[in-house]
Amino acid sequence: MKMIIHVFFIISLFLSIAFASVQDFCVADPKGPQSPSGYSCKNPDQVNENDFVFSGLGKAGNTSNIIKAAVTPAFAPAFAGINGLGISMARLDLAGGGVIPLHTHPGASEVLVVIQGTICAGFISSANKVYLKTLNRGDTMVFPQGLLHFQLNSGKGPALAFVAFGSPSPGLQITSFALFANDLPSELVEATTFLSDEEVKKLKGVLGGTN
Amino acid sequence: MKMIIHVFFIISLFLSIAFASVQDFCVADPKGPQSPSGYSCKNPDQVNENDFVFSGLGKAGNTSNIIKAAVTPAFAPAFAGINGLGISMARLDLAGGGVIPLHTHPGASEVLVVIQGTICAGFISSANKVYLKTLNRGDTMVFPQGLLHFQLNSGKGPALAFVAFGSPSPGLQITSFALFANDLPSELVEATTFLSDEEVKKLKGVLGGTN
Amino acid sequence: MKMIIHVFFIISLFLSIAFASVQDFCVADPKGPQSPSGYSCKNPDQVNENDFVFSGLGKAGNTSNIIKAAVTPAFAPAFAGINGLGISMARLDLAGGGVIPLHTHPGASEVLVVIQGTICAGFISSANKVYLKTLNRGDTMVFPQGLLHFQLNSGKGPALAFVAFGSPSPGLQITSFALFANDLPSELVEATTFLSDEEVKKLKGVLGGTN
Amino acid sequence: MKMIIHVFFIISLFLSIAFASVQDFCVADPKGPQSPSGYSCKNPDQVNENDFVFSGLGKAGNTSNIIKAAVTPAFAPAFAGINGLGISMARLDLAGGGVIPLHTHPGASEVLVVIQGTICAGFISSANKVYLKTLNRGDTMVFPQGLLHFQLNSGKGPALAFVAFGSPSPGLQITSFALFANDLPSELVEATTFLSDEEVKKLKGVLGGTN
Amino acid sequence: MKMIIHVFFIISLFLSIAFASVQDFCVADPKGPQSPSGYSCKNPDQVNENDFVFSGLGKAGNTSNIIKAAVTPAFAPAFAGINGLGISMARLDLAGGGVIPLHTHPGASEVLVVIQGTICAGFISSANKVYLKTLNRGDTMVFPQGLLHFQLNSGKGPALAFVAFGSPSPGLQITSFALFANDLPSELVEATTFLSDEEVKKLKGVLGGTN
Amino acid sequence: MKMIIHVFFIISLFLSIAFASVQDFCVADPKGPQSPSGYSCKNPDQVNENDFVFSGLGKAGNTSNIIKAAVTPAFAPAFAGINGLGISMARLDLAGGGVIPLHTHPGASEVLVVIQGTICAGFISSANKVYLKTLNRGDTMVFPQGLLHFQLNSGKGPALAFVAFGSPSPGLQITSFALFANDLPSELVEATTFLSDEEVKKLKGVLGGTN
Repeated sequence: MKMIIHVFFIISLFLSIAFASVQDFCVADPKGPQSPSGYSCKNPDQVNENDFVFSGLGKAGNTSNIIKAAVTPAFAPAFAGINGLGISMARLDLAGGGVIPLHTHPGASEVLVVIQGTICAGFISSANKVYLKTLNRGDTMVFPQGLLHFQLNSGKGPALAFVAFGSPSPGLQITSFALFANDLPSELVEATTFLSDEEVKKLKGVLGGTN
Repeated sequence: MKMIIHVFFIISLFLSIAFASVQDFCVADPKGPQSPSGYSCKNPDQVNENDFVFSGLGKAGNTSNIIKAAVTPAFAPAFAGINGLGISMARLDLAGGGVIPLHTHPGASEVLVVIQGTICAGFISSANKVYLKTLNRGDTMVFPQGLLHFQLNSGKGPALAFVAFGSPSPGLQITSFALFANDLPSELVEATTFLSDEEVKKLKGVLGGTN
Repeated sequence: MKMIIHVFFIISLFLSIAFASVQDFCVADPKGPQSPSGYSCKNPDQVNENDFVFSGLGKAGNTSNIIKAAVTPAFAPAFAGINGLGISMARLDLAGGGVIPLHTHPGASEVLVVIQGTICAGFISSANKVYLKTLNRGDTMVFPQGLLHFQLNSGKGPALAFVAFGSPSPGLQITSFALFANDLPSELVEATTFLSDEEVKKLKGVLGGTN
Repeated sequence: MKMIIHVFFIISLFLSIAFASVQDFCVADPKGPQSPSGYSCKNPDQVNENDFVFSGLGKAGNTSNIIKAAVTPAFAPAFAGINGLGISMARLDLAGGGVIPLHTHPGASEVLVVIQGTICAGFISSANKVYLKTLNRGDTMVFPQGLLHFQLNSGKGPALAFVAFGSPSPGLQITSFALFANDLPSELVEATTFLSDEEVKKLKGVLGGTN
Repeated sequence: MKMIIHVFFIISLFLSIAFASVQDFCVADPKGPQSPSGYSCKNPDQVNENDFVFSGLGKAGNTSNIIKAAVTPAFAPAFAGINGLGISMARLDLAGGGVIPLHTHPGASEVLVVIQGTICAGFISSANKVYLKTLNRGDTMVFPQGLLHFQLNSGKGPALAFVAFGSPSPGLQITSFALFANDLPSELVEATTFLSDEEVKKLKGVLGGTN
Repeated sequence: MKMIIHVFFIISLFLSIAFASVQDFCVADPKGPQSPSGYSCKNPDQVNENDFVFSGLGKAGNTSNIIKAAVTPAFAPAFAGINGLGISMARLDLAGGGVIPLHTHPGASEVLVVIQGTICAGFISSANKVYLKTLNRGDTMVFPQGLLHFQLNSGKGPALAFVAFGSPSPGLQITSFALFANDLPSELVEATTFLSDEEVKKLKGVLGGTN
C-alpha cells in the first residue's frame, strides 16, 4: 500500500504543478492596477475562504433618510472574490413609504427577489412601454440591462429584497441625482428634459446641485 | 398647445418607429427554436409584465426527501423574461440536517445569500484547495464557475437561501447522481474514481442506477 | 496548363465545400425567429452586396418638430448585413437650437463624430459627475454604455453628426419620454423622481402621456 | 431500504424536472434557422453520443492537387455537437512540398500541433512583423485571430498536423483565392495590391478567376 | 427645508460611497500594464471630459503619397476614454485616385459612412464571393470581421469617410505590406501565394521589403 | 522609381505609427499583474517567434504512476503567446490500462483527437445522461463546458490524444482528488456524496487526504 500512496502523490503533484497556471478565480487586489475586465488578481497563495464571503448584507441599511430606503452593495473590492466572475449582489431596504428612485444600471441586467413586504416595481422599455408589478414575498422580477426602473414599498411594514446583477460592476445611475445633484447647468437640464426652470432649480436646491 | 402636442407626437412616433427594431429583451418563446444564445424571442406585442415576474420561488420546496432539501430554479422558459439576459436565480430550502450534495454548475458562477438559518458551504478549487465557511443570515458567498461545491444546514432549524447565477442556463450536475443514478457501467465508475466495486454498486442501488 | 487549372479547381472546390458551413456573417432574415443574439440568418445564396449597404443615412432627418432634431438609425433588419456583427450606426440632424434630449442606450457604448456645426455634448457618470464638451467639426466623443447623455446644437447653423454603437441593437431610452409619454401613473413618476405633481402632469400633457 | 430508494427517486426526479430547461449544449439541427450564435438546437431527446463524435479527421485528405495539401475541417453541422461551444478542429495533410497557402481565419485564433513531419509556419502581425518557425513533431504554435499565416512542409516526407480554433465557425480566407479565383475585376485587384496586370491575369487564369 | 437637504445629502453620499467601486469606464493609463482586455484604468480622480474627446479626426490626413490616401485612427491610448468600451473610429481621406489597399481588421467588424465623394468599396467572403458597391454621400457599408476589403475613390474630387469598429483595437493588416514590406523570404511569399519571383522581388523593392 | 519608394515608405511608416496602439496579441508577461482577462502583456518589442511556439507537448508524459497516464498542458505563461487568445492545448498519454480519472474543466469546452490507440471516452450531462464512445485514431470528440468526463485506454498498446480548450485557462478538477486528496473533513464528504465513512477514509488514505 505504501508504494501506491507514494506513486499517487507523484501523479497528484505532477498534475497540480502542470496546471499551476490555471486561474479558477481572480480575487480582487485593490492595490494593483484595474483593467477593463476588473481588478488585478491577488496572489493565489494569499487567497482564503474569507475572500469569497461578504457579511455586509447581513444587517439592514440605514433608511432614516428622505427616500426611506437604502441600497447595500456586495461588489469588489469589498467582496473581493466576486471580481471577474460576472455577477454581484445588493440588498434593498425599504422602510414604510420608502422608494428606490428611478434609476438604471448601465452595465448589467438585474434580478430581484422579495424577502419581506410588498414592493411595487416597474421598468420602462426603449419603446416607452411600462412594465409594472406588485411583488410579494418570494416573487422574482427581472429588469433588463440599462432600462429605467424603480422599486417602491407599497405595503404597510418595511420591505426587504435582494438583487443580483449579471456583472461585477453594474453601475447605478439615479436619474434625479444625475439631473439635479451635480453642477450640470440648469439650462442644459431644461433643454434636454423639457422640465421648467422653476422645477429644475427647486430640485437642484433640494438635492444639492449647483449651476 | 395643441400644435406642440401634435408635433411632439410626430417626433415621438418617428423615434419609436425608427428604433422599432431595437431589442431591449428577448422574452422566451418556448415554441420557437433554441439557439446557443437561448430561446427564440416572443413577439414583442405579446410580451407583458407577467413575463418578467416569476412567483415560483415564493413557497418552500418540498424537503421531505432523503437530502432534506430542495432546489427551486427561476429559469427560462418558466421565467420567460430572463432569457438572454445573462442571469438567473434559484431558491434553496434545507430542512434540519438537509444538504445540497456536492455539485457543479457547468455554465455559471453562483452567488448565495442566506435568508434564514445557518449554512455550512464550501467549494474546492482546481488546485484541490478547500474553501469552507459557516454562513449566517445575510452572509453572501460566491462559488466560481464550474467548481465543485455544496451547502449543508449546520444550524438547528430550517435554512433558506437564494442564489443567483451569471447565466440564464447555469446547469446543475450533482456528482453522486452523475456517478450513480444512470447507466454508466460500474467498472467505468470504479476505474475513473478509485471507488470500490462494492461502494459503487451500493450507491447505484440506492440512487437508482443500473449497470 | 489545362491540367493545372483542372487540379486547382479541385482543391478550390474541395476547400469551399469543406468550409461550406463557415459563417462569416449572418444577414438578417426578418421573417425568421429572433434569438438573444439577433435575427435569424438569411440563406447565404440569397445574400448580395445590397444587404451590406444602407442608404437611409444619406439624407437629413426631418427636424421640423419641437426638438428641432432627428435621429436616423442604421440597424437590422433595415440594414440587414449588420446583424450579429456587434456594431451599428445612426445619423443625428440638429437644426438651429435642436437637441437630442437626455437619453441612454441601454445596450451599447456610443462614439460620435461631428460632420458639421457645433455640438454641446455631455454625459453623467454613476458617480453623478458631469463630462461636458463643445465639439466642433471632426471632433469625436465617446459615451460609455448606458450612461445618460445628450447632444445640443450650440452653434448658429444646422449640425450633423454620425454615431456608431458597439452593438447591433443599442436601444434608445429618452428619459422624458420614458417618464411622461406613456401611462406610468403620475404618482409613481413623482415618488420616484421628486418632481412635482404639477410638473409631471404638465409634461404628460405635452408629451402625450396619460394617468 | 426500499423506502430510501423511493424517496431518492423523488428528489432525483424533482431536480431533473426542475432543471429540465438547462442547456448544457446545443447540438446543431441543420434544418432549423441559424442565428449569429450558431445553428438551432436539436431536440435534446434526439441527441445521442454520435452527435459529439466526428470521424472525418481519421483519414488523410487528398493531397493530389497543386498545393499538395488538404484541409479537413471538423465543424458544425457535420460535427453537430460542437455547435455553440466556442471551439472547432481541422486536420492538415501536407505531402512532400505541400503548402497551405497564405490565409486568415477571420473569426478565430488557431493553435496547431505537429503530429508527423516538419512544418515551416509563420504569421505576420498588423505591424508587418514576421514570426517564422520550423516546427517538429509535438511542437505547438498559436496564430492570433485574423492574422495572415501559412504552413509549409519543410521536411522530406509527408507532414500531418491538427489545428484547433477558438470558434465553432472560424472561417478560412485564402488570400490568393480571394484575389484571383473569383470575378473581382483585375483593375481592382491591381489598384488595391500594386500587383501588375500581367501577374493578376496570369493567376486569374491559373486559379479560375474571371474579369 | 434645511433638514431635508441635509438628509438628502446623507443618502446621496451614502449611495455614492457604497457604489464607489463601480466602474462605468476605464480610461486608458498608457503607463500601466496592458491586459488582454486593454489598457490599465487611469485613477478616476484624474479623469476629465478631455479623456472622452479626440480631436485628431478633425483635419484631413496627408494624402501626398503613392496611395493618395490616409487613415487616421481614433484609438486608445490617444483617445483614452474609448479603452475597454468595445468601439473605435477612424477617418479615411482619399484624394482623387486614392485607394485604401486590400486589407483586413483582424479583430473587428467595420461600418463605414461616406461624408464626401464617391467610393467604390468591396469585400470578399470565406467562400471567395465578392461584394462590391459604389457608395455615395451618406451611404453606409458594413465589412464583416476579418474579411479582405478595400476602399477606392471612384469619383472625381476627394472623398472622405468615417469608419467605426466593434473593438477598441481592431488591428489593420494591409495585404501587400504584409507580403512585401518586411523580411519574409521571397521564396515563402511565392510558395504561399503563387506569385512569381519577379513580381515578388519587384514589389519588395517598391515597398521596402528584404529577403 | 526612387521617389516612389520614398513616398511608399512614408505611407507605410505613417500607417504603422498611426496604428501603433493596435494589439493583435498580448503575450504573457509572468512578472506583471494578472487580471480576469489573463496575464499582463509583455512589451511588444520583446516579443519574438518563440513566444508563439511551445515544445513541451513533443514528448510523452511520464505514465509510471497509478493512473498510468499523464496530462501535459500548453498554457500561459509557459506558452506565453496563447495568453488572451481564448484557446489552449494539452497532450494526453495513456499507457496500457491508463485512465484520466473523472474530471471537469470549469472554464472551457474541450475537443479531443486520438492520435494513437483506442480510447473509451464519456461525459455526463446535467440531466445525468451518459454519452459514451470508443474512439479510434483520428476520431474527434467534444466535451461540453464544465461537464464530468473521463478518458480511458481501452486498447492494447499505449494511447495518445491531443485536446484543445476554448479558453487559455480551462481549469482541471479531478473529482476524486477534489474529494479525497485534501483536508475536506470526511463527514462533509460523506454528507455531500452519500459515500460511506469507510470508503472515504480509505481513499483519503490512498490519495493523501486528511481529516
